[in-house]
Amino acid sequence: MKKICVLGVTGSIGQQTVDVVRHHRDEFEIVAMSAGKNIDLLEKIMTVIHAKHICVQKQEDMEYLQRKYKDVHFYCGQDGLIQIATLPQIDIVLNAIVGFAGLVPTMKAIQAHKDIALANKETLVVAGHLIIPLVKENNVQLLPVDSEHSAIFQSLNGEYHGEIRKIILTASGGSFRDKSRSELEHVSVEDALKHPNWSMGAKITIDSATLFNKGLEVMEAKWLFDVDYDDIEVLIHPESIIHSMVEYQDTAIIAQLGTPDMRLPIQYALTYPHRLPLLGGKHLSLSDIGTLHFEKPDFHRFHALALAYEAGRKGGSMPCVLNGANEQANALFLSKKIAFLDIEKYVEETMRAHHWVDHPTLEQLIEIDQWARNFVRERVGEI
Amino acid sequence: MKKICVLGVTGSIGQQTVDVVRHHRDEFEIVAMSAGKNIDLLEKIMTVIHAKHICVQKQEDMEYLQRKYKDVHFYCGQDGLIQIATLPQIDIVLNAIVGFAGLVPTMKAIQAHKDIALANKETLVVAGHLIIPLVKENNVQLLPVDSEHSAIFQSLNGEYHGEIRKIILTASGGSFRDKSRSELEHVSVEDALKHPNWSMGAKITIDSATLFNKGLEVMEAKWLFDVDYDDIEVLIHPESIIHSMVEYQDTAIIAQLGTPDMRLPIQYALTYPHRLPLLGGKHLSLSDIGTLHFEKPDFHRFHALALAYEAGRKGGSMPCVLNGANEQANALFLSKKIAFLDIEKYVEETMRAHHWVDHPTLEQLIEIDQWARNFVRERVGEI
Repeated sequence: MKKICVLGVTGSIGQQTVDVVRHHRDEFEIVAMSAGKNIDLLEKIMTVIHAKHICVQKQEDMEYLQRKYKDVHFYCGQDGLIQIATLPQIDIVLNAIVGFAGLVPTMKAIQAHKDIALANKETLVVAGHLIIPLVKENNVQLLPVDSEHSAIFQSLNGEYHGEIRKIILTASGGSFRDKSRSELEHVSVEDALKHPNWSMGAKITIDSATLFNKGLEVMEAKWLFDVDYDDIEVLIHPESIIHSMVEYQDTAIIAQLGTPDMRLPIQYALTYPHRLPLLGGKHLSLSDIGTLHFEKPDFHRFHALALAYEAGRKGGSMPCVLNGANEQANALFLSKKIAFLDIEKYVEETMRAHHWVDHPTLEQLIEIDQWARNFVRERVGEI
Repeated sequence: MKKICVLGVTGSIGQQTVDVVRHHRDEFEIVAMSAGKNIDLLEKIMTVIHAKHICVQKQEDMEYLQRKYKDVHFYCGQDGLIQIATLPQIDIVLNAIVGFAGLVPTMKAIQAHKDIALANKETLVVAGHLIIPLVKENNVQLLPVDSEHSAIFQSLNGEYHGEIRKIILTASGGSFRDKSRSELEHVSVEDALKHPNWSMGAKITIDSATLFNKGLEVMEAKWLFDVDYDDIEVLIHPESIIHSMVEYQDTAIIAQLGTPDMRLPIQYALTYPHRLPLLGGKHLSLSDIGTLHFEKPDFHRFHALALAYEAGRKGGSMPCVLNGANEQANALFLSKKIAFLDIEKYVEETMRAHHWVDHPTLEQLIEIDQWARNFVRERVGEI
C-alpha cells in the first residue's frame, strides 16, 4: 500500500488523482492532502478520501474545519504544507500546486526522503539546479506527472541515457493555434480558456495559448532528463495523440501515445515501473482518428517559446524571472487587466530589466520571483 | 567483439547486415556467412568481409570457390548451413534466409546455444511450437529483425509482459493498397514489385502486396511476444513511419517510429539492449512529413490476412500449410504462371484440403510443407 500526500487536491490534477486512487484502494491511500481556498470542494473530497492530515491556505478555514471534523489534523499555510509533506508515514508526495508556491514544500519533502510525483513544473523551471542535486543526495525518485514528460519518461524505459539524441516535446498549439499574430491582439479571456484537447486549470490553459506552458516544459525536460536545450525540440501536433517522443542515436524514435487523459500520467507516476488498468480510460483508436498532423512551431508567432529557450539557455536566475513575470501577467490577463499579447511583452521586459545571478540560492529565488511579479505589476500600473 | 554468422548474406537483409557491420568493425565481426546461387555477389562481399567460413547452395560452386580461395573453409547445402551456424566461435546467428529453408539451421543453432537474430519469419510461423520451447530450454536470445517486430520489441523495453493489452502491427498496405478487389484481377508482376516504402527482396514484396506478409507477421508476433491472436491488431498506415505499437493495460501506447531503413532493426538485434549510431541513417522529421494516416484493414479486400488469422488460430500444422502454399503460389506468380488473386485462392484451397495435425514434429512439418507446395503445383498443372 503506497501512502500518498496530495498537494493541491482541489485542482484539476488533484481531483483526477482522487479518481485514480478511488479506483485502486488496495494499492494507494491518500493519508494527507492540501487545498487552497475552495473549502466546499475540499469537504466534498473529504467524503470519499478520509485523509487524516489536511492543510488549507488560511488560518480561519483551518479553524472552521477543525471545529467541524474532530478526528482530522488540520494545518495551514506554507508551514502546514511542509508538515503534511514530510509526515513519516508518507511514501510519495504528489505536488499539484500551481506555480512558484510548490517549490519549498517539494524541497522539504525530498529532504525528508519522500518520492515526488511532480505536476508542478515551476519547481524545476525555477530551481532545477537546487532540486536535482537534492534528489540525488537523498536518493528519491522524481516522477513526472505532466503528460509530455510522462510520455518521455515512458519512452526512456529500459534505455540508456548516453544513447539519447533528442527529446521531441509535442504541443497542441493551444486555443489560438490557428490565429495569426495580428488576430491575437484582440482575443478574449473566454476564448483563451477553450483548450481544444485538454481540460485543465485556468492558469495552465492560458499558458498553453501563449505557449509559455510549452516553454516551461522545455525547461522542465532539461532538468528531468538531463539534456541540453539544443537537444530538446518542440513539434506542433494539434491532435495531442503522440504525447512526446525520444530519438536515440540509432535514429529510432520511441513515443507514447494515447487519448488525452491526465489520469494516465498521474497513475503511472504512482505505479511506475508497473502499470495498472486505468478504470474508465478510453482506448486510442488511430483508425477512428484517421490522421495525425505535425508542423514546426513558428518562433515569431509563438514568441513565448523563444523567450523560454532564451531564459533556459541563460540559466541561473533567468528562468525564475520568466516564470514569476509570466505568473503575474497570466493572472492580470485572466482578470482582464491586460491584453493577451501583453503577457509575453511584460515577460520580455522583465527579463531585459533583470540583473542576472548565476547560482541563485532559495532565498534569492524567492526574492527574484517577488521582484519579477512586482515589476510586471508596476508596469501595468497595479502598484 | 560480437562474432556473427549471417545466413543469406547476398539477400537484401544480408547485404544491409554487411553495411551495419562495416560501420562498426570494432563491435562486430562476420566470421561465417552463407549465400545461395549468387556467387558473383558473394565474391564481391568477400572483398569487404573476410569470413573464414562460407556456405553456398551447390557443391559445384563450393568446389569452384575452394580452388580460388585457399584460406577460407567452404561448405554447401543444408548440412553446410548447420555447420557454419553452430561453429563454436559464433555468438549470434542472423538468419536472413527466405522461407521454410531457414527452419532447420535455426533449430540447430539454438541447440548449439547461439543467440538468434531472426529475419526469417517462416521459422516461427511454421514451427513456433518447436522453436520457443527450444529457446527457453537453451536459454538463448531470440531477437526480431523484421521492422515491425523490432518496433514491438523496442516498445516492450522495461515493461512487464502481464501488463500488455494489445499489439498493433502497422501495415503499409503494399503496392496495391489503393486498388479495388476487381482491379487486383489484372495486376502485373512488375507492378507488384513496386513497393511504395521499402526496398526488399521479390518474395517479400509480393507478400506485402497480397498482405500474406502481414499475416505471417501476425503469426510471428504471436510466438515472439506470447500473445493471443485476439490481442494482435493490424492497422493500415501507408507512410510506414510508425513501425508498430504496444498498448498496455493503462491505455498507454508505446510505439517505435523512424524512416523506413532495415539497417535499424538489423543493428538493434546486434546491439540490444544498447544502441549505436546508425551511420548514414536518416533522421525522421515528422514536420517534413506533415501527416500520418491510419485505417482499419478491409478483411474482404485483403483476404490473405483473414486466412492467416484463421490458420494461426487453428494452429498445429495449418500455418505450415498456409506458408508452404503461399511460397509456392508466390513463386508461380513471380514466374507469371498464375494471376495475382490466384495466390490467395490456391492458398485457401490447400488449407481446405489439408488433414490437420495438432502438434507436428519437425519431420511432419517438412512433409506437410512439401505436400502443400505439391498441392499448389498440381492445381496449376505444373506436376
